[in-house]
Amino acid sequence: MKEKYNVAVVGATGAVGTKMIEMLAESTLPLNQVKLLASKRSAGKERTFKGQTLVIEELVPESFEGIDIALFSAGGSISKQFAPEAVKRGAVVVDNTSHFRMDPDVPLVVPEVNPDALKRHKGIIANPNCSTIQLMVALEPIRKAYGLDRLIVSTYQAVSGAGIHAMEELKTQATEYINGTPAEKLAANILPCGGDKKHYPIAFNALPQIDVFSDDDYTYEEWKMINETKKIMEDDGIKVVATCVRIPVLSGHSESVYIEVKEDGADVAKIKKLIETAPGAVLQDDPSQQVYPQALMSIDRKETFVGRIRKDIDIEKGFHMWVVSDNLLKGAAWNSVQIAETLHAMDLVKV
Amino acid sequence: MKEKYNVAVVGATGAVGTKMIEMLAESTLPLNQVKLLASKRSAGKERTFKGQTLVIEELVPESFEGIDIALFSAGGSISKQFAPEAVKRGAVVVDNTSHFRMDPDVPLVVPEVNPDALKRHKGIIANPNCSTIQLMVALEPIRKAYGLDRLIVSTYQAVSGAGIHAMEELKTQATEYINGTPAEKLAANILPCGGDKKHYPIAFNALPQIDVFSDDDYTYEEWKMINETKKIMEDDGIKVVATCVRIPVLSGHSESVYIEVKEDGADVAKIKKLIETAPGAVLQDDPSQQVYPQALMSIDRKETFVGRIRKDIDIEKGFHMWVVSDNLLKGAAWNSVQIAETLHAMDLVKV
Repeated sequence: MKEKYNVAVVGATGAVGTKMIEMLAESTLPLNQVKLLASKRSAGKERTFKGQTLVIEELVPESFEGIDIALFSAGGSISKQFAPEAVKRGAVVVDNTSHFRMDPDVPLVVPEVNPDALKRHKGIIANPNCSTIQLMVALEPIRKAYGLDRLIVSTYQAVSGAGIHAMEELKTQATEYINGTPAEKLAANILPCGGDKKHYPIAFNALPQIDVFSDDDYTYEEWKMINETKKIMEDDGIKVVATCVRIPVLSGHSESVYIEVKEDGADVAKIKKLIETAPGAVLQDDPSQQVYPQALMSIDRKETFVGRIRKDIDIEKGFHMWVVSDNLLKGAAWNSVQIAETLHAMDLVKV
Repeated sequence: MKEKYNVAVVGATGAVGTKMIEMLAESTLPLNQVKLLASKRSAGKERTFKGQTLVIEELVPESFEGIDIALFSAGGSISKQFAPEAVKRGAVVVDNTSHFRMDPDVPLVVPEVNPDALKRHKGIIANPNCSTIQLMVALEPIRKAYGLDRLIVSTYQAVSGAGIHAMEELKTQATEYINGTPAEKLAANILPCGGDKKHYPIAFNALPQIDVFSDDDYTYEEWKMINETKKIMEDDGIKVVATCVRIPVLSGHSESVYIEVKEDGADVAKIKKLIETAPGAVLQDDPSQQVYPQALMSIDRKETFVGRIRKDIDIEKGFHMWVVSDNLLKGAAWNSVQIAETLHAMDLVKV
């Protein structure tokens, strides 16, 4: 086990990269050097890390010489091109893009759920999609206790999942609409999805599209939740389906989750107790005091908040709940740094 | 059948009352006099109706002398007190509050769905809850063709359902948060629910509470959807469950709807065709062109917009869809005026 690590952050100026730097500063991971990498355009910009000024460098294959751990969050094509370069130079990659997630050689890890999958890594570990991670933290204790037959998820996702510019776009649109600009004249250049043809305002709107559509009329965001859940829980038999929706929230994803458990004996009190003692989860569930998870209150928190747990009215083994987490932290930056911490604890920071 | 009606609007200054006046102006209902009623505080204020200036009068029992149709939207306690006064004086009441909805003597009507229920009225007809109405418009054609075994609904509801002041509060909070006021210092006095103890910001947030909580940890808003669906569809056997959530949208409710039909033979193409020809519904469903219903684009439209129709991945008779409508129009003011038009067409404007 190394005593101290050299860590690179790829995509250091993005919404997630910025949070990765914050999370590294708070991390228990023993650090030697932290190197910030980004596109040529951002090279030369400065960031503060534990009181030191770090200058962002342009990402090139040689950037990874001497690096032990590389945290990637600069888009799938950057990961595709540069993650193998990092591994070639001896770095373990934790990749926050979707590029490697379904690769059978790449573990897809939520440290509270499937840390043992890290043992099978071949240099690259994938960070699951934001909306999947918080769902896994909430549901794994229930799956362990009662099994999961079926999930139906409707998401209420924040714009920060689409990056810093999407956050600025929401604020600008909101201000303009409040000041009298009609909906059809609001400038929209990013959402629902940077890579798609049409763009719509998100301010005071709800867009039932995240990522592009697949041929079957589900979006890729919905397929991520379906496929990643099965891979992380190592159970292809779980029925999973999702409707993924962007709402005018800056950060903090919320999810309306319906589950059917397999075994008899589950009840609301027992499920609440499971959440209360689950790693990474916080029970916020007291309707008599109007206590339930809220996106706006989840910002800058690392935990996943679970509430509104109640039995389905008709289905004996059916339950509903409301799951909220900061998509930039547990959904991305914190889960990536936590994977690095876990690799260290398991002595797996080696290619 | 009367040639022309005297119509009263009770709660004329509210978010729904204002839209009732607009809808009456556009209505085919033959009108003689329109009388605007509100609390003493609002008496003397003026409103324009088809180019005429109408002065709002204070609501008293005698206000209903000579009135044929009274549209109520001033809160449950006002309806409780004054609807019987109106009926006593010969008016037919269309009540937009929840007060009479589950009364077995009161028809609960969506004109596209159960107009015949109007024949049983005894002076009072209830307008269903906003989120239920649009669900009924979308699902009734499917129920008729294939039967409905089960519904799971997650709502994305606009603040205008909580009134004009909630809309102002959202705009003020959004502006203040954008200008740097931290979440914990945002003034919140109305949402999630005027009648409950605690209030939370709605700007850049999602609140999984609408109306107060029942003892079973469902909210009354959720129970409205459950009970009203069964009453309108005249089928206590339909399994219905809901999670009702307020999001920072000014007007336009969205719903993520999962259904399981009873009969064999349903498919996405057939369901799309049913929606296309359903009264009051508009199919907006072309993922290849990013066409789907959007709350912001539903404002001031009377229709219910349906899209993202797709088969469940695992369940043969399961389907998902996205249903959007202007909660102030089809969800409230337009449905009420449409009930009045239907009463007229069926010669039922009599107590």
